[in-house]
Amino acid sequence: MSETPKGLRARLHCALDVGRTGKLSALNMALIVAILLSVLVAVLDTEATIARPMATLFTGLDILFLVLFGVEYLARLWTAPETPRYAHPVWGRLRWMVSPAAIIDLLALAPALIFAGATPAYLFRLFRLLRILRLAKLGRFSRAWTLMAEAVASRRAELLLTLGAACMVMLVSACLLYLIEGESQPDKFGSIPRSLWWAVITMTTIGYGDVFPVTPLGKLVAALTAVAGIGLIAAPTGILAAAFSDAAQRHREAIEAECAQAELASLPPPPEA
Amino acid sequence: MSETPKGLRARLHCALDVGRTGKLSALNMALIVAILLSVLVAVLDTEATIARPMATLFTGLDILFLVLFGVEYLARLWTAPETPRYAHPVWGRLRWMVSPAAIIDLLALAPALIFAGATPAYLFRLFRLLRILRLAKLGRFSRAWTLMAEAVASRRAELLLTLGAACMVMLVSACLLYLIEGESQPDKFGSIPRSLWWAVITMTTIGYGDVFPVTPLGKLVAALTAVAGIGLIAAPTGILAAAFSDAAQRHREAIEAECAQAELASLPPPPEA
Amino acid sequence: MSETPKGLRARLHCALDVGRTGKLSALNMALIVAILLSVLVAVLDTEATIARPMATLFTGLDILFLVLFGVEYLARLWTAPETPRYAHPVWGRLRWMVSPAAIIDLLALAPALIFAGATPAYLFRLFRLLRILRLAKLGRFSRAWTLMAEAVASRRAELLLTLGAACMVMLVSACLLYLIEGESQPDKFGSIPRSLWWAVITMTTIGYGDVFPVTPLGKLVAALTAVAGIGLIAAPTGILAAAFSDAAQRHREAIEAECAQAELASLPPPPEA
Amino acid sequence: MSETPKGLRARLHCALDVGRTGKLSALNMALIVAILLSVLVAVLDTEATIARPMATLFTGLDILFLVLFGVEYLARLWTAPETPRYAHPVWGRLRWMVSPAAIIDLLALAPALIFAGATPAYLFRLFRLLRILRLAKLGRFSRAWTLMAEAVASRRAELLLTLGAACMVMLVSACLLYLIEGESQPDKFGSIPRSLWWAVITMTTIGYGDVFPVTPLGKLVAALTAVAGIGLIAAPTGILAAAFSDAAQRHREAIEAECAQAELASLPPPPEA
Repeated sequence: MSETPKGLRARLHCALDVGRTGKLSALNMALIVAILLSVLVAVLDTEATIARPMATLFTGLDILFLVLFGVEYLARLWTAPETPRYAHPVWGRLRWMVSPAAIIDLLALAPALIFAGATPAYLFRLFRLLRILRLAKLGRFSRAWTLMAEAVASRRAELLLTLGAACMVMLVSACLLYLIEGESQPDKFGSIPRSLWWAVITMTTIGYGDVFPVTPLGKLVAALTAVAGIGLIAAPTGILAAAFSDAAQRHREAIEAECAQAELASLPPPPEA
Repeated sequence: MSETPKGLRARLHCALDVGRTGKLSALNMALIVAILLSVLVAVLDTEATIARPMATLFTGLDILFLVLFGVEYLARLWTAPETPRYAHPVWGRLRWMVSPAAIIDLLALAPALIFAGATPAYLFRLFRLLRILRLAKLGRFSRAWTLMAEAVASRRAELLLTLGAACMVMLVSACLLYLIEGESQPDKFGSIPRSLWWAVITMTTIGYGDVFPVTPLGKLVAALTAVAGIGLIAAPTGILAAAFSDAAQRHREAIEAECAQAELASLPPPPEA
Repeated sequence: MSETPKGLRARLHCALDVGRTGKLSALNMALIVAILLSVLVAVLDTEATIARPMATLFTGLDILFLVLFGVEYLARLWTAPETPRYAHPVWGRLRWMVSPAAIIDLLALAPALIFAGATPAYLFRLFRLLRILRLAKLGRFSRAWTLMAEAVASRRAELLLTLGAACMVMLVSACLLYLIEGESQPDKFGSIPRSLWWAVITMTTIGYGDVFPVTPLGKLVAALTAVAGIGLIAAPTGILAAAFSDAAQRHREAIEAECAQAELASLPPPPEA
Repeated sequence: MSETPKGLRARLHCALDVGRTGKLSALNMALIVAILLSVLVAVLDTEATIARPMATLFTGLDILFLVLFGVEYLARLWTAPETPRYAHPVWGRLRWMVSPAAIIDLLALAPALIFAGATPAYLFRLFRLLRILRLAKLGRFSRAWTLMAEAVASRRAELLLTLGAACMVMLVSACLLYLIEGESQPDKFGSIPRSLWWAVITMTTIGYGDVFPVTPLGKLVAALTAVAGIGLIAAPTGILAAAFSDAAQRHREAIEAECAQAELASLPPPPEA
């Protein structure tokens, strides 16, 4: 009977895709650990003081990750038709291959493939960073991203409004400091784009300290900007926090509803078989 | 029949004013893009390293914006009587011309008009910045500003109270650091106004690093101020976030109610004609 | 009849005390402006570049404030028996004189009285700052302070708990950086109190930049502290914001209820007289 | 009768453990003050300018704390069987001795025991810091920790999701600045780990100012990171604040319910005896 392989494929698909069950399978866990490890290697590899003594280990790990993510890619390709929209064995798989998630998976394999041939140092530097894209795979492990994006989108109007207000205050502040401090610190406030760097770093309350007003009038305007910044930053923060909170609530409910449905849909056949 | 031009004027008025429909028409979108572009040109024009090689492009764009906003101004003048409070064809239009929005529109045209004659460098610098006023035009595209201002006004008492408390802590901190650090760092804490600059930058958690206490006692007071600052900044932030959230909710409801009403009011005549 | 002066005294008392009516009378407004002005003069007076050219003006204003606040003090003394707890004409007024608010009022008069005799420069510097105490008078204009303090007190347990957690993370971070960076930067991390200065400035996200780790391990611990700090600062912030919001709500309701009662209690007699 | 000593042990157990009654007994208060004092001594002892002149006092206090916490340890050992899970007089006490809380108590006694013998300076430095562990004892005074941990755990999914998003933006920002600024500031952005230090300090809005971009493109990316950081930091902040608020609410209700139950359970016997 073709029931068994189909069941295997379905189970493998389910194990690969957390969206179905709402919790992480052992395979998901292992893949997440592998992705995080591969990113860690890519990050540490840029630091010469770490990368040089561990060059052999890092190369070995990269080959291991190539094999692992290659097998994962093929497994996803095989199980793609389990998803209704990629149901056709041939066209469905082709359509899956051009989906953004699959392209990211393929790109994430690229840096490892580099080992096949010699590349100039600059290109290699860039390719190594492509490994970071593997992290985007993690997004697939949760459909919460979509829900979160929807939540933010549903408050688009408020966010645009408050961000617009913040930008306007930022621009007006930058203009004022350009007029006030432009002559005493031309390299720091000599143009509005330069003043804008100060305005962004001040209104986000980062305050590196590379640019700050030195004249009394400039300090007065900066103090008013700082106080206004709190209110203007508070608005999108509050709205975003509420939106995320709502999204999380909705996400939890959606997962629960779907799990119940999925279990109902998948359970009846086995007892009868 | 005079029905057609009146219908055209009404439709143009509706296309110019987002407040009526609650969503942005294609014309609104084009105007917003033009305003943002004109502000971008004004901002980049102050940076010599960008403005010099692109002088011809920037001048051309400014002439384009002059024509565009001039036509927009005339169109708004023509359609003004569509708004009930400017209903009279002559006096209504005159009253519209002295409304704040119309004056800002006219002022926003000023920098472009400058090209007609030569002006001294300092005046030119100021006039260039008048272009930023074009941004204020964006405010017209949403009546949410009014609602937001009302929301903030409705919590005026709480905001004043918490801001007052924050100011008092700021002032007391500045006094203490003036007394403690005034002698060891006279240029930074030598007077209360100078200490206040430190207090504002500390309590807003910006912390440029141009001024900070160096004595153990000063550091102790600064640490207490920093911790107190969190609570005192949290209060207006929380109140403002709630106010903005309420305003956004009310705004959404108001827009929906008005749209329904506006459509009811505008739709019946056409089917009968 | 003694009715008229009593009515005058009652009306003056009401005009002086905002707590009764819930809104600010013209007299309240004038007093608030005067208090703020007197503080502004006291603050600007410490800055030599401002105080020297305006010495005569500032002295004149100080004499004016002396007279004004002296008259206000006497008026409050006269109207004190209007408050039930100071009802006795003699003992009530004496008890009012030793209430904290009255003592602050008297102390706020002290710096102006200084003009009577010569004082050494150092004492004068201290006395000038006593003027700041006048600001505390503003607190009297609102009973919201009491309500706010009550609101914070009602969440004492949560606040202590979260603040305690924040302090413990701060202390552990300071200990770790003392152990890690103590030898490479002995003047900055050479003891736990010195490390604590870094921990406070980091966890409140101020980040002056006078102290920061330079070793990789120190940076790793600092990064973890920074991320933990966000959560630990968020907790008291959220609790405080909610407490303040509740207090403001309760305050508004209390004021409304009291005003209605006060008007009922004060209105009936006049129509009958 | 054996009723009296059992009652004494129960009352002592109750006085030592705040979890039972929901409020702090006088003994609890004294112990908390002693713990805080001992930590204060341990902290100040690392600062040579304070520790040297007060060496005798600090040594004396340490001996006092040794005695106090020793007695406390024995008292807790004696009263351990009052807790149902340590009910057996011998095995219960042994099991209590290996519980984390009891081990921390024993470790907290270690630094004082050091006085018995001579230790090298480096070990002594480490042992002194073990005193900080005494602070962890405070955690025992409130079962709120458990509830809080549960509250955070119940929102694990949202927190992981938002923290993951924040980490990803941090990593992408660090990569971009490594590519953009890596050549102009190799010691600051020359590798992704180095860039990550900048990204953490920027996105938490600390901004020490030891690392910041200097190229226009780097500043643009940094500005976008700063603005994105606000939203990404706002999400976990909002979720945490809500979780803490919920936990505090639940904790208060749990304490009240338990106290009522505990009083019911303990009160009936005495009236009958």
